[in-house]
Amino acid sequence: EKTLDSLLEEKIKKLTSCEDGCFSTVTKALSCTSIKASGRLASCPPGTAVTGCACGYGCGSWDIQNGNTCHCQCAVIDWVSARCCQLS
Amino acid sequence: EKTLDSLLEEKIKKLTSCEDGCFSTVTKALSCTSIKASGRLASCPPGTAVTGCACGYGCGSWDIQNGNTCHCQCAVIDWVSARCCQLS
Amino acid sequence: EKTLDSLLEEKIKKLTSCEDGCFSTVTKALSCTSIKASGRLASCPPGTAVTGCACGYGCGSWDIQNGNTCHCQCAVIDWVSARCCQLS
Repeated sequence: EKTLDSLLEEKIKKLTSCEDGCFSTVTKALSCTSIKASGRLASCPPGTAVTGCACGYGCGSWDIQNGNTCHCQCAVIDWVSARCCQLS
Repeated sequence: EKTLDSLLEEKIKKLTSCEDGCFSTVTKALSCTSIKASGRLASCPPGTAVTGCACGYGCGSWDIQNGNTCHCQCAVIDWVSARCCQLS
Repeated sequence: EKTLDSLLEEKIKKLTSCEDGCFSTVTKALSCTSIKASGRLASCPPGTAVTGCACGYGCGSWDIQNGNTCHCQCAVIDWVSARCCQLS
């Protein structure tokens, strides 16, 4: 049996196109951290996106592998750092 | 003529500062892709933002032109890659 | 004394998990700007996140200091640029 209360809830949810919990995904800010590794490969953790990479030996040539991994391309590389960002 | 129903809709929209469709813009995640090009210029597509650039020949000197284009500055450059991100 | 109107407001706020102003934080897009400086350090302004850095003399080795500052590591550096992004 529908009460006035349940009808009201239904209406609000429909109007806001949201079910319970929808509003908890409202975004507040962008936050980023660096993941550093030895060698030429560094991966960002799940839920984050790679926005850029830094490489040892002054190298500025890199690409992204598998969507989340920084790969430094220069012949000699000792470290790599991935910049990983997410909404939080 | 205003009905109880239309008055309620009005109130909900006012309280949530939203018209129809507003809630569909709620953000879920950050996603990024790379756009690679020959030469020293690579542009991010409309709706995305450049978060960083990579250049051939190990070059790490770049700047952003026209808000959406990676420009590698070193004397000799064969390729350039723009990292392009958006909310999705 | 509670009116029908105030009870309704209460209900809407509770259902949407929001107090006044909450919905104004709904995110529309990612936007980025570059902050360039002389020397080897460039900081992003409050409210933005560093997504990548560029350095003079072709240098691609950098790290982030204090969460918001690009630091170019090569021995000789004349300029540095921080890529600063935010939701807007």
